Amino acid sequence: TSTGGKSKPPPVVHYNLNNVTITHNPVENRENVLILTPMVRFYQEYWDNLMKLTYPHELITLGFILPKNKEGNAATTDLQKQIAKTQKSGPERDRFKSIIILRQDFEPPIPSQDEVERHKMQNQKARRAAMAKARNSLLFTTLGPSTSWVLWLDADIIETPPTLIQDLARHDKPLVAPNCFQRYYNEDTKSMDERPYDFNNWQDSPTAQDLASKMGPDDILLEGYKDMATYRALMAYMHKPEDDLHQEVPLDGVGGTALLVKADVHRDGAMFPAFPFYHLIETEGFAKMAKRLGWQATGLPNYKVYHYNE
Amino acid sequence: TSTGGKSKPPPVVHYNLNNVTITHNPVENRENVLILTPMVRFYQEYWDNLMKLTYPHELITLGFILPKNKEGNAATTDLQKQIAKTQKSGPERDRFKSIIILRQDFEPPIPSQDEVERHKMQNQKARRAAMAKARNSLLFTTLGPSTSWVLWLDADIIETPPTLIQDLARHDKPLVAPNCFQRYYNEDTKSMDERPYDFNNWQDSPTAQDLASKMGPDDILLEGYKDMATYRALMAYMHKPEDDLHQEVPLDGVGGTALLVKADVHRDGAMFPAFPFYHLIETEGFAKMAKRLGWQATGLPNYKVYHYNE
Ligand SMILES: Nc1nc2c(ncn2[C@@H]2O[C@H](COP(=O)(O)OP(=O)(O)O)[C@@H](O)[C@H]2O)c(=O)[nH]1
Ligand SMILES: Nc1nc2c(ncn2[C@@H]2O[C@H](COP(=O)(O)OP(=O)(O)O)[C@@H](O)[C@H]2O)c(=O)[nH]1
Ligand SMILES: [Mn+2]
Ligand SMILES: [Mn+2]
Repeated sequence: TSTGGKSKPPPVVHYNLNNVTITHNPVENRENVLILTPMVRFYQEYWDNLMKLTYPHELITLGFILPKNKEGNAATTDLQKQIAKTQKSGPERDRFKSIIILRQDFEPPIPSQDEVERHKMQNQKARRAAMAKARNSLLFTTLGPSTSWVLWLDADIIETPPTLIQDLARHDKPLVAPNCFQRYYNEDTKSMDERPYDFNNWQDSPTAQDLASKMGPDDILLEGYKDMATYRALMAYMHKPEDDLHQEVPLDGVGGTALLVKADVHRDGAMFPAFPFYHLIETEGFAKMAKRLGWQATGLPNYKVYHYNE
Repeated sequence: TSTGGKSKPPPVVHYNLNNVTITHNPVENRENVLILTPMVRFYQEYWDNLMKLTYPHELITLGFILPKNKEGNAATTDLQKQIAKTQKSGPERDRFKSIIILRQDFEPPIPSQDEVERHKMQNQKARRAAMAKARNSLLFTTLGPSTSWVLWLDADIIETPPTLIQDLARHDKPLVAPNCFQRYYNEDTKSMDERPYDFNNWQDSPTAQDLASKMGPDDILLEGYKDMATYRALMAYMHKPEDDLHQEVPLDGVGGTALLVKADVHRDGAMFPAFPFYHLIETEGFAKMAKRLGWQATGLPNYKVYHYNE
């Protein structure tokens, strides 16, 4: 704190959490949004989509966490290239308030990141526990006293409406999840098509409850595996194009592909359990923990965002 | 970001969590310590003791959270007076790296803060849930990527060895708790004496486990109440003056009066549950959650700190 014999008083900051508003009109109220992205691979389409978000960039802080391995190093290099372009030479209105890049201090538990390998059932517990820890490291070290909203956005979400943040915040819900789809080439119709992708947004079922009640204390329920039929109502299948875009449904489990969270939910202590929590883990456990803290998750079955297709 | 037509590039920070060391010799390794204190009343003795800590102040960030009521306002005023003195006009080596003061956005659930009232058993669940949320708000908004250690220190801890941080860190444990005592005037011996104060540092017992197993899912176990005999082994009673000052014991529950935590424990997601977690809440629930994440708590029965006596 001493420069050339002259000392400058160290910073003292006083925050009144009451003055941090979290409203359905965050642009007008100049609310700070923290966009958090765990990232293994860098997709240019993710960055391009992020850049197109119309929420004032000067109110947005970006936080990334990448593994400390070869794949993570490559993604970090690509990410930094884009950041430098935007923050240094790009037009001023494109620039974000601040950007934090974390490199995680543990190895991902499964070496391959291929879709088939990472979705194998026996890999889920270790993989999702590691993901949970990565999300928590990112969250605990970037959330500030003046953050109003946290947008969780996976690194492979490549297409969203540009008004994503405003549209989700408009619902004024503690946790709100859009419906995550994936575009693909349909061999039958010989044309581009789309299909549901994120199965972690769900409403609980008696079958799942019953399965859980018979499990050992450290076992977890998984969604989207035919060897474990839960009969939960999946938001992925609730999409009705003819219905209101802003249709709401209550959710008991959420995914992390895209999820807007009021910062107070996290500040109360809601995080991503890396251990079985009511037999749930990571983002699904997070929804349960938020619920235990009095915060209910909401899903928007007709509001779509799109996942990369490997 | 624009001043007088000139734009300055917004900050981009890159942190390698691997480079943040957390060692038994934190002074030599220049490790950052975050001291977190939830505060309802300001005690001059607390501040004086804090000032006397020999850990380099330029490596210490202080974080406070105070309630937004009359008592909290008074404490904030007193606290700010001392901070101004230290940070602005005091000797440079006394100054802390930075100081963050948060005002909580919810009312404490019980109006009176008298010792008798706040220790009533029927007040515990709501009181400790509120405390847990206050601790989490403080933790989530102040922990940074370069924090190595978090020292939880209650506002009514008025006497510790000046080498507290170094002494606790030396044990190189994920969570380490000294033994919290209280000085009082002993009417029998007509002289000053001391007695155990913090009963939340304990080793679990079969009786407590058995009580828990018969409880409803939302019930909590409490320590130090004769209507709920847990037969846990309390660190408060393990103090043996003739033994090594640095004697270690494993703990299953911890208190928050004074507690040194490796920042990685929090970064992995360990927080203070405001809901019953294995029938435990707040700091006791925190120890259990840390354990679920693979981090074991340690107590130092012979290493004493002192709580204010009202
Ligand atoms: N930092 C970090 N990010 C990860 C890790 N594994 C996956 N991710 C990222 O976390 C998000 C979700 O993981 P992903 O593998 O896409 O999950 P899936 O779409 O459900 O198969 C994506 O943004 C990944 O880039 C990891 O070990 N460390
Ligand atoms: N911010 C905040 N701090 C609190 C609240 N209640 C207690 N504290 C502080 O939390 C710590 C523990 O509370 P205290 O009442 O001393 O607990 P006890 O010693 O176990 O009776 C002390 O530092 C208090 O000043 C609250 O509602 N809000
Ligand atoms: Mn993905
Ligand atoms: Mn106290």
